[in-house]
Amino acid sequence: MTQAMKAGTLHVVGMGPGDPELLTLKAARVIGSAPVVAFFAKRGRPGHARTIAVPHMRDGVEELRFEYPYTIEIEVDDPRYEPGIRAFYERCAATLAGRLDAGQDVALLCEGDPFFYGSAMYLFDRLAAQHPTDVVPGITAMSGCWTQAGLPMTHGDDVLTVLPGTMESEALAARLAGTDAAVIMKVGRNLPKIRGALDQAGLTGRAVYVERGTMAGTRHVAMADLPDGPAPYFSLVLVPGRQRPR
Amino acid sequence: MTQAMKAGTLHVVGMGPGDPELLTLKAARVIGSAPVVAFFAKRGRPGHARTIAVPHMRDGVEELRFEYPYTIEIEVDDPRYEPGIRAFYERCAATLAGRLDAGQDVALLCEGDPFFYGSAMYLFDRLAAQHPTDVVPGITAMSGCWTQAGLPMTHGDDVLTVLPGTMESEALAARLAGTDAAVIMKVGRNLPKIRGALDQAGLTGRAVYVERGTMAGTRHVAMADLPDGPAPYFSLVLVPGRQRPR
Repeated sequence: MTQAMKAGTLHVVGMGPGDPELLTLKAARVIGSAPVVAFFAKRGRPGHARTIAVPHMRDGVEELRFEYPYTIEIEVDDPRYEPGIRAFYERCAATLAGRLDAGQDVALLCEGDPFFYGSAMYLFDRLAAQHPTDVVPGITAMSGCWTQAGLPMTHGDDVLTVLPGTMESEALAARLAGTDAAVIMKVGRNLPKIRGALDQAGLTGRAVYVERGTMAGTRHVAMADLPDGPAPYFSLVLVPGRQRPR
Repeated sequence: MTQAMKAGTLHVVGMGPGDPELLTLKAARVIGSAPVVAFFAKRGRPGHARTIAVPHMRDGVEELRFEYPYTIEIEVDDPRYEPGIRAFYERCAATLAGRLDAGQDVALLCEGDPFFYGSAMYLFDRLAAQHPTDVVPGITAMSGCWTQAGLPMTHGDDVLTVLPGTMESEALAARLAGTDAAVIMKVGRNLPKIRGALDQAGLTGRAVYVERGTMAGTRHVAMADLPDGPAPYFSLVLVPGRQRPR
């Protein structure tokens, strides 16, 4: 009787908000025992997730670098964007499937928390039905940002709404008016629109802009004091909830 | 010239969702170097946060156990509740202030993420103006639950709304209808009402109930298959967002 080869497990590993010390004990262990470590990176950049993982990787590890086909060259609403990014995820998934079928465990790194707006979900979605998977949650970027800014976000029965800055201004203002606490992601070129929506909802005075939370060069500024202009990718606007007298 | 005593730092430490391995490297280090470790616990219980912290505590550490004055003996809407809980937080803050003024660093443990519905905020709010503070973010209970249930929650431009199960049924249904993804906390005795609101919003088929995510004895059940009845404290209802074909 020949022994059947054990299938490899896909470990999707949350790497947290940026500070290498905000990695979990489990993430460090999983990375340290994986023969293959895969990660996304922008062209010409080392990859944030990889930088955090390196001290935990074992000797002789195989690294798979998945470089996004475009970052700012093509806009998300360009008709070429979706097919191109889909083909990219297909290629990544096929590469991982090859390693898993050969019995190798893979640690797929993911900034923040994998199931919370993580790119790694697009590979998880393609592979989970055919391969054993294990997901390690991570600290979200928003949590890194509100901690960095010293902002207790939600108390008691507060409602929290997480909104993309890409929303239409009117819809954004309506959502902001109807929540206790809010996180606005994807700030980028949407800063003037976000400010307008905050003004309309009467929340500019409570809002705080946070850049690169828990990373080197982090800063936070009250929205009222922030000049308009393009914001980097790692930036958020936070509206803390009701401060209870309790 | 006498040397001024250095004030102690209040470290508020996020302990994550329950799995001891989901503690961060930073949390483990901070707990291991603190001469005083403080934590909340229910009467007669060891305290989840303490159980996770014990293997990291240093020899001779002073433990401060803050036992909630009541858990289910008095309802939150009882007029005695607020004054009693406020007096409790005042006593806890005074105890911590004594250690900090004496130059001792304190690690105040907090389940989940401190600034996200954490009880420790009520002490942070009282002490941060007069004492050096440092907050260590943690993985939230909701993240532990969606990871446990294998549910990718938010993709792309999804809106996520976090709602307390204590809300009125109509308001809950309206919020659910207007979001892509939702987390309903404080399930407890609100399960039948939550089910009604999900039905009204047409979301029962997508909703998943998760109990004790990442802890021993965890389970998750589709809302459609869950019998009504009281749910334990560590339970959530999750509605994952739009699954993109990307």
